[in-house]
Amino acid sequence: MNKKEYHVAIVGATGAVGQKIIHLLEQDQELQFYIKKITLLSSKRSAGKVIKFKGKEVTIQETTELSFEGVDIAFFSAGGEVSKRFAKSAVDGGSVVIDNTSHFRMSKDVPLVVPEVNAHKLREHSGIISVPNCSALQMVTALNPIKKAFGLERIIVSTYQAVSGSGMNAINELMNQSEAMLKGEDITAEILPAKNDKKHFPIAFNVLPQVDVFTENDYTFEEQKMINETKKIMGMPDLKMSATCVRVPVVSSHSESVYIEVEQDVTVGEIKKVLEAAPGVVLQDNPTQQMYPTPLTSAGKKETFVGRIRKDLDLPRGFHLWIVSDNLLKGAAWNSVQIAETMIKLDLL
Amino acid sequence: MNKKEYHVAIVGATGAVGQKIIHLLEQDQELQFYIKKITLLSSKRSAGKVIKFKGKEVTIQETTELSFEGVDIAFFSAGGEVSKRFAKSAVDGGSVVIDNTSHFRMSKDVPLVVPEVNAHKLREHSGIISVPNCSALQMVTALNPIKKAFGLERIIVSTYQAVSGSGMNAINELMNQSEAMLKGEDITAEILPAKNDKKHFPIAFNVLPQVDVFTENDYTFEEQKMINETKKIMGMPDLKMSATCVRVPVVSSHSESVYIEVEQDVTVGEIKKVLEAAPGVVLQDNPTQQMYPTPLTSAGKKETFVGRIRKDLDLPRGFHLWIVSDNLLKGAAWNSVQIAETMIKLDLL
Repeated sequence: MNKKEYHVAIVGATGAVGQKIIHLLEQDQELQFYIKKITLLSSKRSAGKVIKFKGKEVTIQETTELSFEGVDIAFFSAGGEVSKRFAKSAVDGGSVVIDNTSHFRMSKDVPLVVPEVNAHKLREHSGIISVPNCSALQMVTALNPIKKAFGLERIIVSTYQAVSGSGMNAINELMNQSEAMLKGEDITAEILPAKNDKKHFPIAFNVLPQVDVFTENDYTFEEQKMINETKKIMGMPDLKMSATCVRVPVVSSHSESVYIEVEQDVTVGEIKKVLEAAPGVVLQDNPTQQMYPTPLTSAGKKETFVGRIRKDLDLPRGFHLWIVSDNLLKGAAWNSVQIAETMIKLDLL
Repeated sequence: MNKKEYHVAIVGATGAVGQKIIHLLEQDQELQFYIKKITLLSSKRSAGKVIKFKGKEVTIQETTELSFEGVDIAFFSAGGEVSKRFAKSAVDGGSVVIDNTSHFRMSKDVPLVVPEVNAHKLREHSGIISVPNCSALQMVTALNPIKKAFGLERIIVSTYQAVSGSGMNAINELMNQSEAMLKGEDITAEILPAKNDKKHFPIAFNVLPQVDVFTENDYTFEEQKMINETKKIMGMPDLKMSATCVRVPVVSSHSESVYIEVEQDVTVGEIKKVLEAAPGVVLQDNPTQQMYPTPLTSAGKKETFVGRIRKDLDLPRGFHLWIVSDNLLKGAAWNSVQIAETMIKLDLL
């Protein structure tokens, strides 16, 4: 195959997700496309910094309406406000925007895409494609194959989310607090559970049942995002679903304790078979060998890992699963790059 | 009230739970009874060590069949094997045994007691009373008042369990691994997820979806204990219940994401009212103030804390709750001392 070359821009180049995207693009010999040119963009504050890309120094520039000239693909991961402000300029300038923020996700004309699940939606794009919330993303990667095989009626999920979902500052906060607590020193909390909320609580040696701010119905935005986006990605507006989102003192990889009800009588063995054949999914499920996924073993990997699959003890069509994936990779950066790859494969880029 | 005096023995005096019991008994001016004499017992390995009790030095003795002479109340928390070996000797010697291990919990003639829930069962004892598994214990403390008011049909729980549930060695393991990981050093795992299982995995900056060893149906013993004990304590053999038990890098206090279905149409407000009036329960639920319980805020306290109560988004009789309590206090030591207090109040001691 003759791989095409693209000019790629990264908005939010110094952020946790931006850094992972840069790292993935540096290895473009492994991708479906080559990088002809890279433009690294950020806020005024980080502009001027120099980052190495494939051994060459690239200076980060401040994002403006004019940053996107000649850019084929623009990856946005600098927060909803930045996407709101600059995504249209990028599209007008001829770029395809692959947006990692929540800003456009629920817009009717914006496809919300997990390539393994709904790549066909990419054909409907009008310039912007949204990458789902990391917690929803890894869950649908594992559950969509089950839905296709056996139907899906209900999801109840409790999450164990890594701090990197809140960015570099949250990682530093966990590290600094952990070090201070081990030394018996006083600790401060400034970022978690949600940077833009009023109060902040320690995450080191703690868990916080709040990810993002609260909404009017006492669910958090993270919980609402998970629910709404799961329904949109899987095309199931009537799916029954609730979520409890919890932050845990883990750097990378979200874990999820998921209860599902399917529409047919199936066995655990049949579900395992479906997951073994599912794209992007790795089955790690063998209790006698203590085999199951964990954040530490999943971090740095692109797949979604599933284990601890077992029948509910009461409902014959109820099952429990444990789903783990790197929230910065499949949950953000890798899914973004996958979208670009898939669009190229579908001749949309 | 004229408080009576008792000779108390603690089997497992150097363990995580034993230490907490000693601490509670030292403050007997706050209890319903005084300590006349304390006998501290342990394995051969720890015998000879000296512990201060109310300022006086007490030498720990090796547990033998003859250790219980004159002992009124014997608290056991040295593991199931020790309870199996010595509990009967203690009863034969005239002691009432309050056992923190799983050994007798499901025996028909052994009451499994949470004083706020089923104190009346103490009247049926024949020498041994079992303290429930910590995860089940705190959950029933919060759910039994709801059951009494509105009926209870179903529970699905995912836990976030502190390492102290696996003893002092597990606390040290978390601390040592955390320190090593912060320094970028190699880490070793020897205790968690289950000391007597084949493989061990790091818990620092990780979560492990295994607490205790696996059973034949691919649930862990911890999950089965939670389920079986919840049904026994609440007297609900037909309750629908499943559990996923997960270890998190927290020192003390277990958290639980709990989904319930009740038998009547009720509002969140009505559930909150019931919990506000419930013994041993503290409602901490105000999303606009970011008020909810966490392990760090609950550690060292005797109550069970409940927050994040909200209606399921689909089932009108479904609700979600977040339940947190100190696993070594209400989950073990405090519930043990409460059992002794309640027996004294009921004239059973």
